[in-house]
Amino acid sequence: MGHAAESIWDAEPGESLRVGPGFVLADVDTDSAPGYRGDKQSAGDDLAAGAAEFDQLQEMFFANSRLGDERKILLVLQAMDTAGKGGILRHVIGAVDPQGVQITAFKKPTDEELAHDFLWRIRPHAPGAGMIGVFDRSHYEDVLIGRVRELAPAAEIERRYDAINAFERQLVDEGTTVIKVMLHLGADEQKKRLQDRLARPEKHWKFNPGDIDERLLWPKYREAYQVMFDRTSTQDAPWYVIPADKKWYARLAVQSLLMDALRGMNLSWPVADFDVEHEKKRLAAS
Amino acid sequence: MGHAAESIWDAEPGESLRVGPGFVLADVDTDSAPGYRGDKQSAGDDLAAGAAEFDQLQEMFFANSRLGDERKILLVLQAMDTAGKGGILRHVIGAVDPQGVQITAFKKPTDEELAHDFLWRIRPHAPGAGMIGVFDRSHYEDVLIGRVRELAPAAEIERRYDAINAFERQLVDEGTTVIKVMLHLGADEQKKRLQDRLARPEKHWKFNPGDIDERLLWPKYREAYQVMFDRTSTQDAPWYVIPADKKWYARLAVQSLLMDALRGMNLSWPVADFDVEHEKKRLAAS
Repeated sequence: MGHAAESIWDAEPGESLRVGPGFVLADVDTDSAPGYRGDKQSAGDDLAAGAAEFDQLQEMFFANSRLGDERKILLVLQAMDTAGKGGILRHVIGAVDPQGVQITAFKKPTDEELAHDFLWRIRPHAPGAGMIGVFDRSHYEDVLIGRVRELAPAAEIERRYDAINAFERQLVDEGTTVIKVMLHLGADEQKKRLQDRLARPEKHWKFNPGDIDERLLWPKYREAYQVMFDRTSTQDAPWYVIPADKKWYARLAVQSLLMDALRGMNLSWPVADFDVEHEKKRLAAS
Repeated sequence: MGHAAESIWDAEPGESLRVGPGFVLADVDTDSAPGYRGDKQSAGDDLAAGAAEFDQLQEMFFANSRLGDERKILLVLQAMDTAGKGGILRHVIGAVDPQGVQITAFKKPTDEELAHDFLWRIRPHAPGAGMIGVFDRSHYEDVLIGRVRELAPAAEIERRYDAINAFERQLVDEGTTVIKVMLHLGADEQKKRLQDRLARPEKHWKFNPGDIDERLLWPKYREAYQVMFDRTSTQDAPWYVIPADKKWYARLAVQSLLMDALRGMNLSWPVADFDVEHEKKRLAAS
């Protein structure tokens, strides 16, 4: 298995899109394609080529867990509506064996969930060994919509950033590679996508009047995202901000982040923990 | 959306593979392809064509759940080792949006699970509205390996058949279409597949010496399956026995069963529960 897919990047998303000190969300061009050598025309082929390698890496990752490797991956996806989370799940995550994937969509909390600490409903969904867990929205809602709509007192919102860092630190200590992605969509592009949903009856189910309410709070969301990055993009669990006006770019970038994580594990096929020749004989006699 | 895929069958799996009164497992030819008009060469194209329709049906199914439709689907997969459950998950289930799929693999029960009734660990994994749930092994292990290896007293095994029927009846009453599939593999074909796993180091992780132990109990398993069919293939939650020596056939057949279930729901795109024109104006002004 080569690393052929690497050649599509001048600068890898794992470096160029990582949120480090001094990061300013307002400076990101949502319609850009940082580091990618190709264009819209080449993106489909590049995604397919990447998918084949991603699929192999994921199988090896899963295989090792069956022989005791405790490592796991958690991909956290956050974004404004229509930014393309669904497309990431379908076109990036959908390329690997569904047995090795665990997707959790976090909706508006229920009354029971609200009666507990905000991390209570999150913890049980952390991925197990050999799994790629995906959070479609996450505990970060509690410092995004939570902050913008003042769903909790300011002091509680403040406390949550530290609680999140402590929680993610635990996940990392337990062998989890935590990859946090914001799909960063421009306001104009969002308008087009929402208009498209409203224009097509078969897309109406994806639309919610609340989407426009949240859209009207865009500047406040941008502030909340900025604070979130400042407080929770840690060495252990960094954020990546992915320009998302070009769907093809966002998919390639997320695929690249996942493959980086898998390549970084230096995986090989696990060695049998049984006597292969003995089993061949038993099987022949059966 | 046409029902073009139907033309590939002389007799639909939903009828021809259904376990009814008088069914005898020993009479099934595991290397056959009942009702399929094509052959190995055409199967790939037919599966792809079916996948496109399955994908659309599944999206409509999921969409309706967002507007209050409570229906769900549960696919139960049971089989001897190497029969191709993994391939079904990847090539049939993998064709639809992963957000709408919930796969649960039931392994050997833990001590905590064993301390409870056998259905205790199963219930929480029943699919929610709009979801296709898949059980990769299931509560039926408790009357298969449970019976063959006498893991519980005979009276307890007996009790379980009725408990399973009552449980599945509940699921059906709650709006679940329950589709139970046995992938029926021939002993010779299994031997070949196990030999292949042993011959290839990158497949060793899929092999377990216990697979041969179970293989040696094949006649007892066949008996246990027969009793299971006799006792639990109900009107509400029928079993389908799918000849599985030909992987391409088994995949087409499972796809067909799932599409039958979806077509039988007479789905259409849900009608918006908001004022579309009003929302268009709000959006334009935003």
